[in-house]
Parts: sequence; structure tokens; C-alpha cells
Amino acid sequence: MPDRRFAVDDAPTPDHRLTEDPENLHYTWDNAIEPALTVEPGAVVEFDCRDAFDRQLPVDGTVADLAAVETAGHPLTGPVAVEGAEPGDTLRVDLLAFEHEGWGVSVVPPGEREGGLLPEKFPDAHVRGWELDETTDTGRVARFADDDAPAVGVPLHPFPGNLGLAPGDDGTHDTMPPRQVGGNMDVKHLTAGSSLYLPVEAAGALFSIGDCHAAQGDGEVCITGIEAPMAVTARFDLVDRSVTQPEFETSGPFTPTGQDEPMYATTGIAPDLMDATKNAVWHMIGHLHERRGFSRADAYVLCSAAVDLKISEVVDAPNWTVTAYLPESVLVE
Amino acid sequence: MPDRRFAVDDAPTPDHRLTEDPENLHYTWDNAIEPALTVEPGAVVEFDCRDAFDRQLPVDGTVADLAAVETAGHPLTGPVAVEGAEPGDTLRVDLLAFEHEGWGVSVVPPGEREGGLLPEKFPDAHVRGWELDETTDTGRVARFADDDAPAVGVPLHPFPGNLGLAPGDDGTHDTMPPRQVGGNMDVKHLTAGSSLYLPVEAAGALFSIGDCHAAQGDGEVCITGIEAPMAVTARFDLVDRSVTQPEFETSGPFTPTGQDEPMYATTGIAPDLMDATKNAVWHMIGHLHERRGFSRADAYVLCSAAVDLKISEVVDAPNWTVTAYLPESVLVE
Repeated sequence: MPDRRFAVDDAPTPDHRLTEDPENLHYTWDNAIEPALTVEPGAVVEFDCRDAFDRQLPVDGTVADLAAVETAGHPLTGPVAVEGAEPGDTLRVDLLAFEHEGWGVSVVPPGEREGGLLPEKFPDAHVRGWELDETTDTGRVARFADDDAPAVGVPLHPFPGNLGLAPGDDGTHDTMPPRQVGGNMDVKHLTAGSSLYLPVEAAGALFSIGDCHAAQGDGEVCITGIEAPMAVTARFDLVDRSVTQPEFETSGPFTPTGQDEPMYATTGIAPDLMDATKNAVWHMIGHLHERRGFSRADAYVLCSAAVDLKISEVVDAPNWTVTAYLPESVLVE
Repeated sequence: MPDRRFAVDDAPTPDHRLTEDPENLHYTWDNAIEPALTVEPGAVVEFDCRDAFDRQLPVDGTVADLAAVETAGHPLTGPVAVEGAEPGDTLRVDLLAFEHEGWGVSVVPPGEREGGLLPEKFPDAHVRGWELDETTDTGRVARFADDDAPAVGVPLHPFPGNLGLAPGDDGTHDTMPPRQVGGNMDVKHLTAGSSLYLPVEAAGALFSIGDCHAAQGDGEVCITGIEAPMAVTARFDLVDRSVTQPEFETSGPFTPTGQDEPMYATTGIAPDLMDATKNAVWHMIGHLHERRGFSRADAYVLCSAAVDLKISEVVDAPNWTVTAYLPESVLVE
């Protein structure tokens, strides 16, 4: 049996478990949703999380399957109410363990849906399944689940794309944008061992989680990481710390192998940060296409899964530099 | 004698050296500037580079000294013409060695000058000198050159803030913004061992370099890294590769210690990438001020020298997530 678990040392046994049954899922943020569970501070909870496509897009899914997916938003498991949490408090969430199911999927949405960084460059949808069960000398990696697909090995670093609290504003809120209370932040370093601080806006805090990724590049440029159903274990505490937007502690990984390694980088230089970002990614797609033999669609997926966007400088007016970094180690023979 | 040199193994002896004498310096980009040196492809050149303040701001410089600095732009050493280089070619620049002089300086410009990411938050100028000669268990580090200043140890990774080619457009061009041909990109990973590819726009390529930094965070948020005079050794080649904006190969370092290490991170979540960036940095300044005892001005300088900005996601419309990462290792006792 392959090792599908990523956990801190001595991860505690959960006190509670929320299955992915419909009564524990919601697809919008709303502080009126009844808690699926109420816990005391210090409690450890395991969450069974569906993937972002709500288990409607299998590992061998097609563009037609993608078009048929129907969800009202990300399936989120929760909410968990924390006793005593009040607006103005800060909830600490320690991420303790992740366990995937051996597969994931990435998609490029059709351009007309305007999802992703470069919809105008990608009019056609594209779907790639991933197998997550292989271990190489760079660790546990994801490979495209198609023998005819390019050979890549993307080291896994599972994390939740979407985790946060119910907004204080009443009513339903789309799960797509992140907010002050967190949500769909897609911060790839919220890995096992990381601790997240979230500002509480609703009584009970009302924490939910989902949209797990087996790996993702900083930027998530095609709008998906390696989307994967996963079980997540987390501990909750109320702490004496004031935050206005999410803050966290992490030890990475900051590179696929956890240490310095060769990267190929493309710059985007422009007077608008978004344009600089688009330039950097488009140049990287060109590099992967022209020099490494990827289709542009597969290159876009690989950028979203494994290429990191850094803001090199944001002060040399009027032009900013954004740089995209591709770890050479993900391009396997 | 402290080790002030950072070099690849077996760095070759330079074939040529350009001193920092006035005849080898220029303060604007202009393809009409006569080459200080003409070389064949394959040549190795050492460049003596003044710091960004043109040696007018010493390590113990004050705000008054900063106000008195007069330069027409970054002092750049060059240009070097490469024989045979024509518009449409690509110049490869291998960065082989850096040697600093043991000191550097960082500044926060006065808010009215509108330099840096947060001029509205920092009306007053601030100057901090750095000593670069100490080795600790995290390597060679920079410390504030003032016994009353906060204790920090920022690992050194010297690189040129400004290196590039003369623009194809005739006339003089400000050295502040980077362009298609490179220039003031402030990419912190252009360290010894890195190779840069630049698109040639003028006959001879006309390469110049300066504005070296002993260390810098991705973002360079207060508008200075650890600004330091430095000698840089580079090799030039014309290569069969097409680039439209600069691209490069590097092995980092991607963290101060070159491997995964604990970081504290603050998110900025906003519908505009620049606003998200400002939020993330302002939250980090708050963290350093409120929890770690730094003045906000010193925190701003430390962010510029050692905090990295990553674009976590740029696809979860309408809100983007930019995250600032502070390596805990730079906060020494």
C-alpha cells in the first residue's frame, strides 16, 4: 500500500470526525449554516473533504465530463463551531495531517468561462488526471495518469486550498474569492505542521475546509492545483493575538525537494502587476512548449501545479518585475 | 580577513577589468554611449560597481546625508560591447563571482518622494547601515551597523540589482525601471552561478551592471536592498535562444539557509494585486512592530532586505492573495 499520509510527528488521534456526507457539506459561506459539530478549544477534528469538483470529475475525466460538472461552489466540510469564539477573537488552526486517495485532477477551463490567468490564450478546455502513488528520489510525486502524457514528477505537498471562517456579513457568499476570514486563499505552504491564524467574525468562528490540493505552484495560474479528495486533521484554539487578515507559521516546503535546486525562470516586466504576472507565465509556457516539448495546455497545467510566482520588485516605477520559477526536478525523463 | 567573496567553483581569472573610474560609469541607459570595452564572445570581465548611492552615503550615513545625495541615476559600469551581437540575438551572461567591501546601506526615502511600496505610511526618511563581515551558523550575515539597533542576521546572497543592455530606442532612458532588455529587475536569485538570457536590441548588445545588493527580499519593498559596492565577474556569450524578456537559470538560494526553515507569513487579500501586496507587507510590518519589538521603519527595512513576496493565487476572482514570508532565522537574539 503506498504511503498516502502526510503528518506531523506524533499527530494526535482526532477527537471528532466529519464525514463528507451531505449533512456535513456546504457550497457557499453563510454564518446562518448550522454547525455540523461544536467543539471545545483544543479539540482535534478530522475532516473528509471532497475535491473541488465534488467527485463529479474522475481521474480519467474528459472535457465533456468537465462541462457536465454541476456545483454551487467548492464543497466545504463543516462548519465547526468553537465554543466561546466571538467576533474579534483569533482562531488558531494547526494543520496536523493530510491523507489523499491516490489520484487528483487538473483542468484548464474553456476561455469563455474566463477562469484562470490567461483565458484569452486558452479558448479550449483541457483535463489532466494525476496519479499520486509514486515515490522517486525527489520524494512522493504526482505523474500524469496517461501513458501518452509528458513525463513529469511533481513532488506532493498536500494542503487545503479553501479553509476559513463564516463571514460576519449575513447572507450567502461565493466560495471562490478569499476574504479577511480566509477561505479560498490557495496558499500552498499551509501544509502539515503549519499553523494558521484567522480573525473571527461570527459567534463560534464557524470553520470549514475543502478544495485540497496534492500540489500547487504559487499563483495557481490555470485555476486548479492537483485537485484531490483528502482527509485533513486539524486542531483548534482561541489565542491572544490580533490579526486583520490571515497570518500563519510554516516550514514549507519552499522548493520541491526542500532545499536549493536548479530552476528555470522567466520574468514579466510591465507597469501593471497583473500584466507582469501574465507575461511571466506566458513566457514560461513558451519555454515549456518550445524547448521542452509540452503542448501549451499541458504547460499551463504544469505551471499551475509546480511553477512559483514571486514578486521580484514592486518599487522600480513605472515597471514591476514578476518572475515564474520552474524547478528542473519536475521534468523527469 | 573576512571572506567577502561569493563565487562559483573554479571561477576563471577575468580577461578584462572595468574600474569604477568615471570614464567607465554612466547614469542613464543610452545606446549612443561609447563602449568602455569591446570583447569577443566567451570573454570574462570583472566590473567594479559603485553602490546605488554612488559612494555618497557611507555606512554611518544619516538622513541628512541621504538628502544630500545627488546622482542622475544608478551608477552603471560599462557598457561592454560584444563583437557580433546584433538586434534579435540573445546574450547569455554567466554570473561567476561577487566580492563586497564589508558594508552596505538601506534607506526608506521620505514619503514625499513617493519611493517604495508604502510612501503614505512612511513620511519620514530612515537610514540603516549594515556590517557584512560576520559569519554565524546560518552562514555569512548582515547586521545593522549600530549597537543600539535591533539584532538581526540576514544571510548574504550578493547579486546585481541592475544589469542589462542598452535599449534599441535612441535617446536617454532612466535607470529606474527595468525593460525588455533587463536593467533594474532586482531579481534576488541572479546570484553567483546563475545564467541570464537577455534580448539584444542594439548592435554590440552594450551590457552594463551596477546597483549590487548583499541581500534583498523578493519585492524590495522599501526601494533598497542592502546596497553595497561590489566587484562582479561575468562571462558573455551569444546563444541560439529566443527570449522577449529576460529569462535565467539559478539554484537560489531560495531560503536564507538554502533549505526549508520556519517562516512567519502574512497574507494580503484584495481585488487588486498591488493592494494585496501592500496589505501583506503592512501586516508583516505590524507583526515585526507589535510582536518582535521593531520600530515600523526598521521593520520596513528588514522586509525589504529579507522578506519574500509570493503570489499565492491570482485566479480566485475577484480577490487575489499575496503573501509575505519572514524567515525566523533572521531574527537573532
